[in-house]
Amino acid sequence: MVTREVLAIGVDLGGTKVEVARVDSAGRVHQRVRRPTDVRDGPAAIEAEIVAVVAELQGTASSRPVGVGVGVAGQIDPHHGIVRFAPNLGWRNVPFQEDLSQALGLPVVVTNDVRAATWGEWLHGAGQGCDDLICLFVGTGIGGGVVSGGRVLTGCSNTAGELGHITVDLNGPQCTCGNGGCLEALAGGWAIARQARESISADPSAGAFLLKMADGQLEMITAKIVFQSSRAGDPLTKQLVGRVEEALIAGATSLVNAFNPCRLILGGGVIEGMPEMVDRIARGVQQRALFAAREPLEVLRARLGSDAGVIGAATLAIRTFAEEEDRGE
Amino acid sequence: MVTREVLAIGVDLGGTKVEVARVDSAGRVHQRVRRPTDVRDGPAAIEAEIVAVVAELQGTASSRPVGVGVGVAGQIDPHHGIVRFAPNLGWRNVPFQEDLSQALGLPVVVTNDVRAATWGEWLHGAGQGCDDLICLFVGTGIGGGVVSGGRVLTGCSNTAGELGHITVDLNGPQCTCGNGGCLEALAGGWAIARQARESISADPSAGAFLLKMADGQLEMITAKIVFQSSRAGDPLTKQLVGRVEEALIAGATSLVNAFNPCRLILGGGVIEGMPEMVDRIARGVQQRALFAAREPLEVLRARLGSDAGVIGAATLAIRTFAEEEDRGE
Repeated sequence: MVTREVLAIGVDLGGTKVEVARVDSAGRVHQRVRRPTDVRDGPAAIEAEIVAVVAELQGTASSRPVGVGVGVAGQIDPHHGIVRFAPNLGWRNVPFQEDLSQALGLPVVVTNDVRAATWGEWLHGAGQGCDDLICLFVGTGIGGGVVSGGRVLTGCSNTAGELGHITVDLNGPQCTCGNGGCLEALAGGWAIARQARESISADPSAGAFLLKMADGQLEMITAKIVFQSSRAGDPLTKQLVGRVEEALIAGATSLVNAFNPCRLILGGGVIEGMPEMVDRIARGVQQRALFAAREPLEVLRARLGSDAGVIGAATLAIRTFAEEEDRGE
Repeated sequence: MVTREVLAIGVDLGGTKVEVARVDSAGRVHQRVRRPTDVRDGPAAIEAEIVAVVAELQGTASSRPVGVGVGVAGQIDPHHGIVRFAPNLGWRNVPFQEDLSQALGLPVVVTNDVRAATWGEWLHGAGQGCDDLICLFVGTGIGGGVVSGGRVLTGCSNTAGELGHITVDLNGPQCTCGNGGCLEALAGGWAIARQARESISADPSAGAFLLKMADGQLEMITAKIVFQSSRAGDPLTKQLVGRVEEALIAGATSLVNAFNPCRLILGGGVIEGMPEMVDRIARGVQQRALFAAREPLEVLRARLGSDAGVIGAATLAIRTFAEEEDRGE
């Protein structure tokens, strides 16, 4: 077998943008293109956009990719890559894998976006060389992926890893999922902003600083502004961030006791906005998890940032198709 | 290869008794012996007891077992079957697999007792034919096991499945593990008894019925007595059982969202004492878990009862050693 550079195309498809990158088998991004998406145009328009971008990337490239991996924020049928439900895109039962493969003339594998990011962090990020790990991505929402015994867990209907929807406070606030007290309802970006707004409404004088940081507009408050206020020493937001950390420690402890990972990898916008949380969560888990579970544990910050999605999707494509191609040659 | 009956010895070793059974490859118990254990005598005495019982079982048997599987309530090193820590037995770093194998002249595999029960329920109980399931055993303590993609999850240090120590109420009561608000601290047998005692102390008139059920002795109250009182219509204990169910629903919902099992199998003394809980937990999870995770889910009662341990341990021995023997013949 001649050693040659194996490359794949990784696609990270969200409700507001699509990112497409050429990624090699070492997880290096060679080129990338990011485009806004207009979900109102429907799947065919997004498919056409991806086809155009892939052609653009391939125009200057010397080697043909082994295939295309796509991460979509939604529920995916693993056998045929059908997007069962993607609320941000407004899609239901879209046979995206088949459609895109026909349009591109390349093999395509479709997976969930967080699952794709887990593949990325596992094989090319903070999870390298480790066979038992959890990626917990704390952004506007909270999602995750689990690698156990060297395999990414998929579950019964390919939805394993909904780690934002573990209950950490059975008397806690309502979550967007319909349940109450989910980790996401206490520590997701949207929940942090909601709690901040509620705190200001409940005590306007204590919330004055935070409100000022948002130009006096309650509805402009985001998790990012909460972190800025906290860092500036504002007592109300420091308390709020403390509660977010408590929720993340409780959730992380649950996951460590249930899954017994060697590494817990923390990523996503909330962690990126407040990276000092990683050490505080690590200390909290070391105090609370069972000895046997916490003893081998490392808590690490994710390493690929927002590249995890395209790198992971491309990596999955290489794992899925490069071997087939080798057999066929 | 001549088809013949494959049998193994299953051992369920706890702090008060050891149970030893001859089990065939269909999970049928042919014979069994149960003996009290006196942990003060140390590992050598328990080993001698097991050797004597195995000899007794083999004395009347026609075929030689392929090996011995032992389930121990404790933390087990998976590579050498060393009992790292077994609080109920008072053991630390006991090389039980090696010692017992030498004493018996048979191959031995040692695993955690709840893991053994999971093997039993998976292959011969309520989990038959299913590759993605969770066993949640709600007894005095709460433990569990997870089968995902057709494999029992072990985790980084062989302690995956500590499902009693997921946090369901971050403001909840203290658990014996040192953390607060664990599922076990709200719904384990010891916690049910504790809550009952606290309720009586807080409101003696409301607690009068329950106290009478325990012959007027607060310290005699057990989960079993709580269930009896609840069934007799006592309002205080009905409320208490309702709170236990809420905790189990919250914990079960977390597990369903995180692991996406096809089946959630509920067993253990608390479930056996209040089997009507299974349907109520099933309904609660159907209301609270994410649609994609709950859609394929069945919630079932464990089928093997207290036999799960010996059947599972023997099954693990058959899986581990029967193949080796076939190769060697």
